[in-house]
Amino acid sequence: MKARVIVTLKTGVLDPQGQAIEGSLASLGFGGVNSVRQGKVFDLEIHGTDTESARSQISAMCEKLLANTVIENYAIEISN
Amino acid sequence: MKARVIVTLKTGVLDPQGQAIEGSLASLGFGGVNSVRQGKVFDLEIHGTDTESARSQISAMCEKLLANTVIENYAIEISN
Repeated sequence: MKARVIVTLKTGVLDPQGQAIEGSLASLGFGGVNSVRQGKVFDLEIHGTDTESARSQISAMCEKLLANTVIENYAIEISN
Repeated sequence: MKARVIVTLKTGVLDPQGQAIEGSLASLGFGGVNSVRQGKVFDLEIHGTDTESARSQISAMCEKLLANTVIENYAIEISN
């Protein structure tokens, strides 16, 4: 089973990397970009076929390792 | 208009960061994870309402700055 985890900064948390990219886009001539926020994506391949147990296992992985839940949100997408 | 760009390593490109995460998950007791690949996500806010022109502009941003197309693929999702 394949799963994708998307980890993004919570609203209000400063994102200097995103701001740097925004500045670079502007200086490359790309106007009209109001904001850029950078996050992380993890593509996992997991044994088994039970979507619900996979989701709860991945949720535990996010809480323990993949995301810093003080400043980051995570979203889990599972595809068979 | 909001857009999300997901940048992932091409198949066959080594991902030591993903392998490190895989090892950490195993040592934390999460079995059954066959592979982990890490990528990047960019959440953009863009002026305008024309989806097609936004998509072509973001595609140009990816080619020039957001992705290294020698080793990375990118996917663009646009939501109004």
